[in-house]
Amino acid sequence: MNFKKQIQARLDNLTKPRKSLGDLEDIALKMALIQNKLNPSIKHKATIVFAADHGVVKHCVSAYPKEVTAQMVLNFLNNGAAVNVLSDYVNAKVFVVDAGVDFDFKKNSGIIINKTMNGTNDLYLEKSMPVAAAKKNIELGKSITSRIIKKHKINLIALGEMGIGNTTAATILIGHICNLNAKIITGRGTGINDASFKVKQKIIDAVLKRIKNINNPYKLLNEAGGLEIAQLAGAILACAENRVAVVIDGLICTSAALISYLINKKVVNYMFAGHKSIEPAHIFSLKKLGLKPMLDLNMRLGEGTGAVLGMCIIEASLKILNEMATFENAGVSKGT
Amino acid sequence: MNFKKQIQARLDNLTKPRKSLGDLEDIALKMALIQNKLNPSIKHKATIVFAADHGVVKHCVSAYPKEVTAQMVLNFLNNGAAVNVLSDYVNAKVFVVDAGVDFDFKKNSGIIINKTMNGTNDLYLEKSMPVAAAKKNIELGKSITSRIIKKHKINLIALGEMGIGNTTAATILIGHICNLNAKIITGRGTGINDASFKVKQKIIDAVLKRIKNINNPYKLLNEAGGLEIAQLAGAILACAENRVAVVIDGLICTSAALISYLINKKVVNYMFAGHKSIEPAHIFSLKKLGLKPMLDLNMRLGEGTGAVLGMCIIEASLKILNEMATFENAGVSKGT
Repeated sequence: MNFKKQIQARLDNLTKPRKSLGDLEDIALKMALIQNKLNPSIKHKATIVFAADHGVVKHCVSAYPKEVTAQMVLNFLNNGAAVNVLSDYVNAKVFVVDAGVDFDFKKNSGIIINKTMNGTNDLYLEKSMPVAAAKKNIELGKSITSRIIKKHKINLIALGEMGIGNTTAATILIGHICNLNAKIITGRGTGINDASFKVKQKIIDAVLKRIKNINNPYKLLNEAGGLEIAQLAGAILACAENRVAVVIDGLICTSAALISYLINKKVVNYMFAGHKSIEPAHIFSLKKLGLKPMLDLNMRLGEGTGAVLGMCIIEASLKILNEMATFENAGVSKGT
Repeated sequence: MNFKKQIQARLDNLTKPRKSLGDLEDIALKMALIQNKLNPSIKHKATIVFAADHGVVKHCVSAYPKEVTAQMVLNFLNNGAAVNVLSDYVNAKVFVVDAGVDFDFKKNSGIIINKTMNGTNDLYLEKSMPVAAAKKNIELGKSITSRIIKKHKINLIALGEMGIGNTTAATILIGHICNLNAKIITGRGTGINDASFKVKQKIIDAVLKRIKNINNPYKLLNEAGGLEIAQLAGAILACAENRVAVVIDGLICTSAALISYLINKKVVNYMFAGHKSIEPAHIFSLKKLGLKPMLDLNMRLGEGTGAVLGMCIIEASLKILNEMATFENAGVSKGT
């Protein structure tokens, strides 16, 4: 019996009708395959939040001023944001990475400085970043994630992000990779008004047309990426390399997941979708990755909030696999 | 500013775009209204599982023999079942109530004996139970739940059940109350084969026709109820009376919720839907109650598993309401 069948046999022998725990069983099975263990376990959890600024905000594509990126990073460092509170609930340590915020954080503030640029260029009027920067930031995301995994013995990671304006970049990347037009995929992000929405849609439409012949993931980041998106893609590649399960969050994380997928298709074997965001492009990107979201709570905050909350479902699935009685042990009759 | 507006104002002032945490915000608001507190909290949690047997099983409407009801109750008492493992994960104490199992449990086994009959009559050929038994079992469910709430200072309850054959009874009750026919609502329960499915559908169809003019909830239990369903309805009424939030589970719990709703419409103000089961009648019953399920994980086990897992979402929502920083405290600029 191969390994996968062994795990399925174990699940089928627990005191419940076969497959009656639905997705929980699939999740437990995937965790067993990721860890290559019949009794996979979660020792230490981390939430890694990558933050960066976006040149495109000058066109007012967000309801918030650009300064909020740095302000929210400080809020993360002070444990005041939603991602902190939820990470505390699931007992995940939060790491905040400055992947390109246009602000000089104090060295002793607890942030991990990991940047090459103070934000991207305006992706509407020029290219987001040099190709070399795209490659460099993927590497930076990869190395910091590997370091966190090893130093803190992490085996479950939730990824999050902060970057005013980043839904514009993420929507373009997803729209391009999933072959969707601006009309279908433009969302309200932080909650923009009709005027900003029109501008955002116009920018997404124009850039999608400009990049329509590009297939290379580095070139896509070069044209319309974000520095936190590049680092998130690297983080996902690091999780796969280290055989660590990674939970992705909403729109921005999923755009990074698509970039990592273009680099190495195997990343999906290590990836869970924390939730379904109400951003319209999100569900298309999850479909492309073949992932079913664990939660659907009309969330659209980002930061990693949906990914962190999804960790509960993964942990619960492992309790099922590891701790339930079997029919034999419990003396329960099997069904027909 | 009225109380509801005060809570909404607090949620809107936390460092996140307005409503960006979606259902989590609605759940936190509902908890605040239930507890009538600006900072609602969960002190102690309980899972109460009501078990009973069903006369209708003689027609082979389940994939499991009737004995499995008692066997699974023993499994609950030994902490081996899915509901135990998940309750342990969310730190909820499990109470197992014998509401009418056809078995004599030992007094020192840890079970709460709360029964008037050793299972129902065969609802296909006769009435399930006398009207007096329906009323008595609602009272029994109510009093045991009130006792548990008071003795253990519980303020969040997940309800579950065990009873081979009980999806037949529950489906009839839901079908009748939601005005649906057997073709639409008959499900595979524990995973029955085509032959059993046909019998089950025939029985559901026949009983729906027999009871079509009945509107009284006690009469409905009299015709097609289960003893655990009656006690679950009582448990929900007790939660509402004690202003305690209650999470309902899948098909059987929701049929009980509908019965409690016919007795007192206000119960829905105290009720959360843990999850959406794949049993076809379930979503109709949730719609009738005006509840949105918190999870949708293709589960169909019952026992309270979906309700227990849903407790995570409620707890997370309260962390958000109580622990996040406000825009002022965090020095974050507000959006437009």
